[in-house]
Amino acid sequence: MGTFEGDFRSKLREVSSGAAFNNWLGLEVDEAREGEVELSLPWRREFGQYNGYLHASIVSGLIDTACGFAASTLSGRVLASQLSVRFLRPAVAEVFIVRGRVIKPGRQQVFACGEIFARGAPEKLLAVGDAILVPIG
Amino acid sequence: MGTFEGDFRSKLREVSSGAAFNNWLGLEVDEAREGEVELSLPWRREFGQYNGYLHASIVSGLIDTACGFAASTLSGRVLASQLSVRFLRPAVAEVFIVRGRVIKPGRQQVFACGEIFARGAPEKLLAVGDAILVPIG
Amino acid sequence: MGTFEGDFRSKLREVSSGAAFNNWLGLEVDEAREGEVELSLPWRREFGQYNGYLHASIVSGLIDTACGFAASTLSGRVLASQLSVRFLRPAVAEVFIVRGRVIKPGRQQVFACGEIFARGAPEKLLAVGDAILVPIG
Amino acid sequence: MGTFEGDFRSKLREVSSGAAFNNWLGLEVDEAREGEVELSLPWRREFGQYNGYLHASIVSGLIDTACGFAASTLSGRVLASQLSVRFLRPAVAEVFIVRGRVIKPGRQQVFACGEIFARGAPEKLLAVGDAILVPIG
Repeated sequence: MGTFEGDFRSKLREVSSGAAFNNWLGLEVDEAREGEVELSLPWRREFGQYNGYLHASIVSGLIDTACGFAASTLSGRVLASQLSVRFLRPAVAEVFIVRGRVIKPGRQQVFACGEIFARGAPEKLLAVGDAILVPIG
Repeated sequence: MGTFEGDFRSKLREVSSGAAFNNWLGLEVDEAREGEVELSLPWRREFGQYNGYLHASIVSGLIDTACGFAASTLSGRVLASQLSVRFLRPAVAEVFIVRGRVIKPGRQQVFACGEIFARGAPEKLLAVGDAILVPIG
Repeated sequence: MGTFEGDFRSKLREVSSGAAFNNWLGLEVDEAREGEVELSLPWRREFGQYNGYLHASIVSGLIDTACGFAASTLSGRVLASQLSVRFLRPAVAEVFIVRGRVIKPGRQQVFACGEIFARGAPEKLLAVGDAILVPIG
Repeated sequence: MGTFEGDFRSKLREVSSGAAFNNWLGLEVDEAREGEVELSLPWRREFGQYNGYLHASIVSGLIDTACGFAASTLSGRVLASQLSVRFLRPAVAEVFIVRGRVIKPGRQQVFACGEIFARGAPEKLLAVGDAILVPIG
């Protein structure tokens, strides 16, 4: 991937489409700029846990992916070494909006954080989290 | 679900089969006793991130599910309020083994932790994590 | 303590002065309003770890206290059940500024986050973190 | 400090005594071997939060120090980049025992975990946590 210099969004879409799980999810890269991304995911019934909320696996994966993509706009390929997620409200939405942002870039470690919202007016904050990403360039 | 008193494993299988995402995964409940569970997940190509390791989403979901199931053997239905995962090594295996264990039960909060191994002799530790679960009885 | 309705700052000062460790630190409550606080701590040599940065113990304690005080403006007495801190840069400053904010209030759990800055123009972000607080009213 | 090859315990005591805050605490290094340490801390009234439990700052600092010392037996000087603590029970004891252990060593990141007990027979588990340490050799 290399550090992006051109069109972050199309690069991230290419990366995402190379990830089998992201393809199954149908994850969309809506915006990307230096250190920040916005993703979206339309709800599907298969994403549910036992009472029909978005499964913690997918909530966590959205935070991880948003953090990782935000980091990759600055540092190229990265791997997460740590992920932490706080589940604030039942994750229910027709479309989930996910924002990731780099808090502190670095050569050895990139610190990033993410938020998941239910799309709407107003948006509703469902979960927050953070990740440490290690550049593997 | 109520606090389990009988066959933990068959109760957890029933709960798991009611979770659409767990069904898609093909997650197996191999062992369950008071405060402890063991799950397994055979690798499928769809589970991969961009370089073919198990996607962080699924790593996280396995830790979350093992913690939640371990908690539910003591406290019935629970929801995670916090999940944290450390990715120690590339998550590559033919079969992933996941162990969850309650560290501290409680009426308001249950503290649990989990580990993911690549099945083999010896097993290889791939990721560790912990969760706080809230009983919703 | 009860839920504050009047002068948050003087109530928090009273609470803080009842905590022996906060007195030793010399922690100041500079601002407090519903769900938000700002604290400050002037550097002293005793606060150092082996190479003279602010000790992780105190970095963590500042995040914890800011989160707890922010939560207590909404929920009265609280106890932390979980604390997580990311150390972004060496914690060096003449005066440390700490901001805490509630992300999601709740009857069973309050989610809050905090940031530590080196005072200056511009301020420099040194550490971030989050906590889950349990009301014990 | 360099990677320890000889007497881990006396090396760690020397390191600890170079940290002003650890001196104020009166932290003892009781045992140290490759990847593992045991520390102890006798209670003093100054360590209390508002209701007399060990302050979260010190609970966190004990986990951080145990993780960092365990890491340093394998990797020499390290700095924490991430610390997370779960407060399981009110931290009350005459003497606190702290054990730290490396989960996964590494050149870029060391993963470690720690536990705090109230000394006694049986010991009582009060808090658990984990840290990521970066070697700064």
